[in-house]
Amino acid sequence: MSDLLLRNLRPMGGPACDLLIRGGTIAELAPGLDAPGVPVEDARGAIAWPGFIEAHTHLDKTVWGMDWYADRKGGPLQNLIDNERNDRNRIGLEVHRQSMRHALHLVASGTRIIRSHVDVDTDHGRSLFDGLQATRAALAGMIEIEIVAFPQSGLMVRPGTLDLMDTVLASGADIVGGLDPCAIDRDPKGQLDALFALAEKHGKPIDIHLHEPGEMGAFSMEMILERTRAHAMQGQVAISHAFCLGSLPESRAAALMADLAREGVAVMTTGSPSASVPALRALRAAGVRVGAGCDGIRDTWGPWGLPDMLHRAQILGMKNGFRTDAELEVLLDVIGPGGAGAIGRKGHGLDPGAPGDLVLLAGSCPAEALTLCAPRPLVVKGGAVVARNGAPLRDIP
Amino acid sequence: MSDLLLRNLRPMGGPACDLLIRGGTIAELAPGLDAPGVPVEDARGAIAWPGFIEAHTHLDKTVWGMDWYADRKGGPLQNLIDNERNDRNRIGLEVHRQSMRHALHLVASGTRIIRSHVDVDTDHGRSLFDGLQATRAALAGMIEIEIVAFPQSGLMVRPGTLDLMDTVLASGADIVGGLDPCAIDRDPKGQLDALFALAEKHGKPIDIHLHEPGEMGAFSMEMILERTRAHAMQGQVAISHAFCLGSLPESRAAALMADLAREGVAVMTTGSPSASVPALRALRAAGVRVGAGCDGIRDTWGPWGLPDMLHRAQILGMKNGFRTDAELEVLLDVIGPGGAGAIGRKGHGLDPGAPGDLVLLAGSCPAEALTLCAPRPLVVKGGAVVARNGAPLRDIP
Ligand SMILES: [Zn+2]
Ligand SMILES: [Zn+2]
Repeated sequence: MSDLLLRNLRPMGGPACDLLIRGGTIAELAPGLDAPGVPVEDARGAIAWPGFIEAHTHLDKTVWGMDWYADRKGGPLQNLIDNERNDRNRIGLEVHRQSMRHALHLVASGTRIIRSHVDVDTDHGRSLFDGLQATRAALAGMIEIEIVAFPQSGLMVRPGTLDLMDTVLASGADIVGGLDPCAIDRDPKGQLDALFALAEKHGKPIDIHLHEPGEMGAFSMEMILERTRAHAMQGQVAISHAFCLGSLPESRAAALMADLAREGVAVMTTGSPSASVPALRALRAAGVRVGAGCDGIRDTWGPWGLPDMLHRAQILGMKNGFRTDAELEVLLDVIGPGGAGAIGRKGHGLDPGAPGDLVLLAGSCPAEALTLCAPRPLVVKGGAVVARNGAPLRDIP
Repeated sequence: MSDLLLRNLRPMGGPACDLLIRGGTIAELAPGLDAPGVPVEDARGAIAWPGFIEAHTHLDKTVWGMDWYADRKGGPLQNLIDNERNDRNRIGLEVHRQSMRHALHLVASGTRIIRSHVDVDTDHGRSLFDGLQATRAALAGMIEIEIVAFPQSGLMVRPGTLDLMDTVLASGADIVGGLDPCAIDRDPKGQLDALFALAEKHGKPIDIHLHEPGEMGAFSMEMILERTRAHAMQGQVAISHAFCLGSLPESRAAALMADLAREGVAVMTTGSPSASVPALRALRAAGVRVGAGCDGIRDTWGPWGLPDMLHRAQILGMKNGFRTDAELEVLLDVIGPGGAGAIGRKGHGLDPGAPGDLVLLAGSCPAEALTLCAPRPLVVKGGAVVARNGAPLRDIP
């Protein structure tokens, strides 16, 4: 944890001042600060934003920088899941190397925290988790990585997976993952009871992928809400995607959003361009904590995406029909302070006492910075400069 | 029109060869070509694609490179139309300068032809058209610009607009534009009869914006189809957006697509992320000619978009849930040969006799090139190099 004096930056796009970080924590903001012996960076009037929150991705999946992967499949979700599980080793998708690539690009684009799911399945055992944990250790001073133990291939339909989840959670995974208790696992009660029991045993939060549309998804969501109450896990559960909220009648979706807000269940949205996604305006108006993520980036599932939360904010904004400056600032909150709240981190901002984690943005105002999506002039983590002019200060393998 | 020998390129991603352009036209493709006295470019094994077709944009609208525009509005289409018309002069949106910027970025990203709508309204008279025509003349050797006379603020609801349309069509506009005959113009029969009469008088094709959803849009589409038949304009009519095809029941949309194919009515899609858009697979399967466009780029309507057809192909692909290499190649056809067909240009390809208009792409195969969306190494128009490494060979004002 370092000391750093940043001169002439505009916190959250406001008036220019200096910002002093001491021991990795923001100590003071004021014009004309002086701190003898402390390293100085000149922000040249750039906007400063708290480090971005990548609240939903898969660091164990990208083929970034590998030979072109020409065997992507169409069809239902199960096809994509099976194709990936079967092809990982054949194509040499080495998780430590690939997650280093992915995470270092996120460092360069100004990310403070990554919540990454990692596949836990009986074909690969704990090996994918181990690869990701090595990346977390290697990048400890540059970015924080939360690991979600994720039964991508199903929990109930693939016996042995539950034991692996238990092992991985005992070995350092932070969060209990899950997916589609009806559509993929064919046993919503069985799966959700097992996940909540795991969470209780390990004292860890939950984050469940829910792709299920319409009333099937609403049913699974109700089951999650019931267990959140029963296990007194308010504020510790998240639902990723929650596509059903985008395809249900507005009044039904609104009632579910009110329930999510009441039980403190967060929603992680990816703004998936081809799906019906929850309306960001409605979620926030209902008081639901919302985070955003890029989901998989150039992986065996699809060729799309970039490891950059500003780019994801653009996709979310286009999807939600956002146009005005006020709407663009909502997006910057979702990938910033709002997103931090969604993953349960408090005090994420540019006030004294907050972590010395920030990113400088090019542009005359926050809305323009989001539109330009230009390389980030500087990224700071715990008072240390970790990236400059769009490149991380460490070689990408 | 120039001569040029391109060495070591891969036409459409196929085996490497040399390509000779003589007098602006592709003369020969073969390995080891020799052409004494002809300028040579080394493509270093890059993929070559016919110059991209930007089939739907508005060169008269962008605020690219101007001070940040902070007054964007939400709400219905009419708000956005009125806001733009009222703000154009106040903010100094000078059409010649702005369309030069927009078009030169399209040159740099490998575009051969732009079909641009230009607002024709009683507040601005023919001035916006004149600004765009100056840009067309200035860039004549670098890119082709088709101008659509576009009654953005309505034809029937704003008397005087029809006379202006007539003037502009007599002064060099190529295509008769229109929009939403029900929702905006409140008189579908009046508007469409007037547009088809203009087309007949000037002997020019038609391209109508149709944002109307569901059955209202289907009704307008039927009215357009009826007039296409009655005026024997098969093959000369296009509908831009055609959002209704994305919100109607599948069988109803399929029947309309069959009608569009039968009457040779093309569809220009922008893959609008926040709207229900026609399914690209279904359009092409029905035999409808499909072009793609970026629509407005960073204008008073919204902050989104880039002047780059590869970027637009990505947006279209994400929206349509495309993942496989075959699907990515469909996108490259839509912005290439397929798009040329949609705007009525034949012989757009890399065969002898075709125009010497091509773009080199970075990537090991066409699908990877689309994914990478990297700066284009070289852009050639009529045998002349017009852009290199992502920058046009002419200053952007
Ligand atoms: Zn995911
Ligand atoms: Zn348009």
